[in-house]
Formats: sequence, structure tokens, C-alpha cells
Amino acid sequence: MEREFTSIEDIGEFGLIDRLQTILGEPADAELIRGIGDDAAVFRKSDGLFQVMTCDALIEGVHFDLTITPMRHLGFKSIAVNVSDVVAMNALPRFAAITLGIPHSVSIEMMEKFYLGVRDACHTYGLIVVGGDTTAARQLSISVTIIGEVMENRVAFRRGAQPGDLICVTGDLGSGYAGLKILIKERIALQEATADFRPDLKDFDHVIQRQLRPEARLDVISNWERGGFVPRALIDISDGLASEVHHICRQSGCGALVRQDSIPIHEQVKTAAVLFEDEPSNFALFGGEDYELLFAVRPSDFSRIDDGTAMV
Amino acid sequence: MEREFTSIEDIGEFGLIDRLQTILGEPADAELIRGIGDDAAVFRKSDGLFQVMTCDALIEGVHFDLTITPMRHLGFKSIAVNVSDVVAMNALPRFAAITLGIPHSVSIEMMEKFYLGVRDACHTYGLIVVGGDTTAARQLSISVTIIGEVMENRVAFRRGAQPGDLICVTGDLGSGYAGLKILIKERIALQEATADFRPDLKDFDHVIQRQLRPEARLDVISNWERGGFVPRALIDISDGLASEVHHICRQSGCGALVRQDSIPIHEQVKTAAVLFEDEPSNFALFGGEDYELLFAVRPSDFSRIDDGTAMV
Repeated sequence: MEREFTSIEDIGEFGLIDRLQTILGEPADAELIRGIGDDAAVFRKSDGLFQVMTCDALIEGVHFDLTITPMRHLGFKSIAVNVSDVVAMNALPRFAAITLGIPHSVSIEMMEKFYLGVRDACHTYGLIVVGGDTTAARQLSISVTIIGEVMENRVAFRRGAQPGDLICVTGDLGSGYAGLKILIKERIALQEATADFRPDLKDFDHVIQRQLRPEARLDVISNWERGGFVPRALIDISDGLASEVHHICRQSGCGALVRQDSIPIHEQVKTAAVLFEDEPSNFALFGGEDYELLFAVRPSDFSRIDDGTAMV
Repeated sequence: MEREFTSIEDIGEFGLIDRLQTILGEPADAELIRGIGDDAAVFRKSDGLFQVMTCDALIEGVHFDLTITPMRHLGFKSIAVNVSDVVAMNALPRFAAITLGIPHSVSIEMMEKFYLGVRDACHTYGLIVVGGDTTAARQLSISVTIIGEVMENRVAFRRGAQPGDLICVTGDLGSGYAGLKILIKERIALQEATADFRPDLKDFDHVIQRQLRPEARLDVISNWERGGFVPRALIDISDGLASEVHHICRQSGCGALVRQDSIPIHEQVKTAAVLFEDEPSNFALFGGEDYELLFAVRPSDFSRIDDGTAMV
């Protein structure tokens, strides 16, 4: 008996999601506003109020390496990357559930440090852990689900950009990936080092911080709310600028022009790019893990967002 | 530098949850009705209506073995065990998010079969998959979050049982574990077998079905709703009757008397118990994975639940 075996690598994560979604078919529920295909699902909570739901997993050996990742930062990051997906719907996070797969090599003390980071993030972003599940596993596996809320008239999707809109990003890009590259390089140096080796990372404090303890841009959407601004299309930058621009374009049915010299890039990314003999813009376009926001705005609205946002 | 290393096995899953919960502290949110400590978290959706949120993971090598688990059944079970936690709050499931960690050894075709099972379960229980995440992993890891709904006046918690209440269970117990034991035995026989070996499992069809494709008892709580009945305390039986009675007692502040000869046990469990030289009641008390309901009821209400429920 011959069986079909197509490797998931052959079609990639997005290809897999497309095939699985085909099996499930189009969902029909009066309260469901948006299912699979955006940063979070959206359903109606009450008159004028939407709920959003998102989940994102961090797996040891895939998303993080325990030899270069402090547990408290990992706890913070596990919440922050999910808050970032809530923020990418222009919504505020409310409740989180955390599912942990824990290998034998991980102690109670390590998990307590992890939870200190979770608590830090809950305080920072104003959400509450309401449940979860813990189980044994071969790799440390962290799966977080967050429920958030947004007024119906403030929700933002990936779709919605119009020809002529300006494409903007918050903060600076490429730092998350530059931080990862520096940490991996130092880990290798550390493994090959003599006893008196001390890594000197202060020249890269910004990019390392951005890799180990990224922040979700809840501050940006809170400013927008105060100013009465809603972007036409919105996504968070978790997979690199190129991928996210593509998502906005595909779902909005338009093209985009990104000017390489307009991409905001930190000096430390430029230094890291020299070190790794690469272009800084590659870090921003393809690196990922920046958790900044990419959004489309009417040209007439651009003057309303006076907060260091860069037009790309 | 000496570091503390306490193994999680030393204090167990519930001990770990207690320690992590201590770090997070008591949650404060006007809309949060119940956080960690029941089958699902409960928060207010609107006037008179609560939402529940639960997540449960199934990990290869911990919760299932791919050599004896058809993918379509696994997909169904992944949803059903989470629906069971929703049902254990007397709530109806609405939306699900699925996070998958997929190893290289798992093909697209296998995941498509898995999703056929997910679809079956969504049809059976009336819920919709609205999102998720997929990533690489060393073990097939399935983490599901389900959001459900229940009227405020129908919600049931683990706490709430009163002295004098009757303790009841639905269906029969011990079957899930008996099914697992039979499947493991047959797998070993198969590994040692000659080419013409065919496992004969028809004497154990009930318990194998209960292990591979358990059903959540949405039918029971739907009957209760039609009859206007609400149990005083409610939990689903995922870890065995003994553990669940203990949860109800601890959270309700009472003791309980379980009469061994009143526990409903299927004939096939009795046959399996003989085969494995064990007591059938041990399968029911300590086996787990039955996904039946355990609940406390006022003696005067018992006549209202005429549906094969056993008083234990």
C-alpha cells in the first residue's frame, strides 16, 4: 500500500493553513465578524462592541533557545507577542490563557521566573491570566490565547487599504533579528571561550532588548484612540516588513511602493549588518520579530499621527 | 554558583499551578467571574450572559501515540475534550482556536485527516474554528482554546455542592482507560506478530471507541436546559472519578461517600479488568479520559433527571 506523503515544508505554513481552511469550509455564525486570515478572529460581544481572539505559540528550538533566553524575558515575550496580535486589530487585551508543555529539564524555579515575566507583561498591558493547561513535553512549548476588545467603529483589519493611502510603520525595524544574530554569535563565542571570557554586548543593548523582551505597541493604538484616529488597514510586523506589506496588499487588493531609504533602522542594526556582511534593509524586510505596527492611512489623516511614525 | 532545581514531578501538575498562581496574585476585573481553578474561566459577556474560556493540550507521547491513533479520531478528540470542559460549566461551545506544533514526520495528508476530525466535531457540537497558529515541533502538539456561552442563571461550578446532595455521574466510567490498555496490548502483539496477524478488537469496540473518539456530553446539558435543571456543582471526568470527586469536595467544602457497587461500569471494562488482573472500579476511579459528567444534585431534584444517570 502506497501512501501519499507531502511534507509540510513543501507548501509552507501559509499553504498548510489554506489547505486546512478548505476542509473546514466557510464558517457561518451571525456573531462571527472575521475568522481565520487576520491577526486575530473577531466576533460580536454586544451592541457596538467586538471581541478579538488570537493565539500564538513559542516553541523551544524553533522560536527560542534557552541558552540565550532568560526565563523572565521569555514569560514577558510570550504575552507581548500575543498582545501585539490583539493590538494589530486596534483592540485592547483583556484575558489570557497559557498552555505549557514542560520538559524534565525545566525546574519549578525556572517556571516561576517565567511567570514573573508573565506577570510583568500582564501589568504592562492590563490583562489577566484566567486559565491554561500544563503538561509534560520534550520541548518547552508555550501556547498563549488572548481575548481582547475593540469598539465596532475602531476595529482595523489587514484589508481596507486603498490606492493612494500612505503606508507607515512605528518604531524601527530589523532590531529583533539583529538582536538574535548577535546573541547566536555570542553563544558560539561563549562555547569556544576560555574561562575568563565575558561577552561585551553593550554596543548592542537596543537590538538584544528588542529580541529578548519585545514590546507590543499598545501605546501607539492608545494614542490613536485619544486622537480619534483609525488606520484603514493594520497588521503587526512579526515576520518582517516584506511579508506584512504583502498581507495588507493581498487582502486589500492593491499594490504598494516601499522606499528602501525610508525604512526606519536603528544604528545598532546598521552596525550588526556590517558585522554579518549583509544589508540593514534585509534585516528589516525579512528578519521579523519586531512587533511594530504597519498601517495604511489616508494622506489627509497623516498629520494626525504625530508620534515618530515613519512613512515608508 | 549553585542553583535551586526542583523537578516539577516532585510537586505535580496541581502543585505547579498553585505556585504559578501565587506569583500572578488574585486577579481583579469587574467582568471576571471565575479565573484559574475550574474547568473553564468565566467572564461576563453581557447582561445575564456569561462567556467561558478553556484550553487543553494533547501532546504526542504524553496524551496519544500515533501508532494506535487514527488522525481523524485525534482531530475529533482534540475538540471533544475541550468541549467537555465547556460543558462542565453547563455552557455551550461557540468558537475554537487551534495551535499545532507539527514534526517533520507528519505530512499534509495526515493533517488533512486530522482536520476532517476537527470538522466532524465542530458539526457535532455546533462550534466554529476561528483561528490558530501552526509551527514546527519535535512532537505533534495540539493546543485548543474554546470560547463558550452560558446564561448567568445556568452556570455551574465545581463549588456549590451541599451536605445531603446526591453525587451522580452520566454514562459509564473506566471505558476510556480500558480502551487505552487494550490498544497498547494490541500494539505490542502487533510488533511481535508474524505477517498474517490480525488484531481482533470487536470484543472491545465500546472501550476502544471511548478512548479514540470520546464524546463530550453536550446532549446531557441540553436535556437539562430543556428540563430547567441546573446541578449544584459540576465537573467533567477527565482524570478519573476519584480525582474529580476530590475537586468538587475541596471546592465545595464537603466530604463525599462513593459506593463502589454503584459506579456504572461497562461489561467490556469488567472483561478488560480480568485480562489485566485489576479491579474494574480502579479503571473508573483512577483511569481518566471518560469525559462523562460528575455533578451534585438536591435529593428533591433527582427525579427530574431521568436519563440513565447513575447516583454514586
